[in-house]
Amino acid sequence: MFAVQRSRQQSHRSGCPIGIMLDMLGDPWTLLVVRDLMFMGNRTFGEFLLSGEGIASNILSDRLCRLEANEIVEKRRDPADARRLIYALTEKGIGLAPVLVEMILWAVEHEDTGAPPKMIRAIRSDKAAFIGGLRSAWRAARRGRVSR
Amino acid sequence: MFAVQRSRQQSHRSGCPIGIMLDMLGDPWTLLVVRDLMFMGNRTFGEFLLSGEGIASNILSDRLCRLEANEIVEKRRDPADARRLIYALTEKGIGLAPVLVEMILWAVEHEDTGAPPKMIRAIRSDKAAFIGGLRSAWRAARRGRVSR
Repeated sequence: MFAVQRSRQQSHRSGCPIGIMLDMLGDPWTLLVVRDLMFMGNRTFGEFLLSGEGIASNILSDRLCRLEANEIVEKRRDPADARRLIYALTEKGIGLAPVLVEMILWAVEHEDTGAPPKMIRAIRSDKAAFIGGLRSAWRAARRGRVSR
Repeated sequence: MFAVQRSRQQSHRSGCPIGIMLDMLGDPWTLLVVRDLMFMGNRTFGEFLLSGEGIASNILSDRLCRLEANEIVEKRRDPADARRLIYALTEKGIGLAPVLVEMILWAVEHEDTGAPPKMIRAIRSDKAAFIGGLRSAWRAARRGRVSR
């Protein structure tokens, strides 16, 4: 426990909660990795690499390290294949669901996006239920009951 | 109208709404400027410069330009002093309130922040009313009825 550098002990440039969040996540790639974990079901380094926006492998490595250091993502061996490392959101990581959902709603409102209309309808008709669904999927995947 | 490069016509690296948002705002300073406009009542270049995190003036210029190009911020002459330029959130800009509010809640939940406890209580007790209050303040400032 004592050997781990906890993010709570890290110094932030100001006490502002938005500033603190941006110290951790104020980088486009960082939040796209969180998105991949939350919505795409991506779990491996290779899956993140292939996920659309064309992240470079050195940037991906760096962002995954930072997400782990900030306890938003955790890494473990795949129970189904011990040679493989898989990544998952922590409790703190899945806690970002309301932020990402509001980001989706804002972008869909103001820009032309390729967001699935069914998902947007689901968010608009019951936001809390949609976020609850993301949490349930995360919890089930964490217990290893859903392999993908 | 036709001379203005609208953000809707800009190409985004993917159709993903989160990716599109991060193309516009995936930079720590950009969202801190939005925060200053939304919560601090800052309106001038000088006020943004002094607002706490120590943004450099060239970075601030660049981010304000980008926010204007993306129609999140608009610039006009101060009616009270025509020599002075003031910045304000557009309708699209104030639409970011739910995103920033969720960012605040997440940061306060997981980190030690200096967020005013009274504000956090207000958000937790009635999020919609809190966001409505931000919108009302924005609308009043826009009509010029509130000078600060």
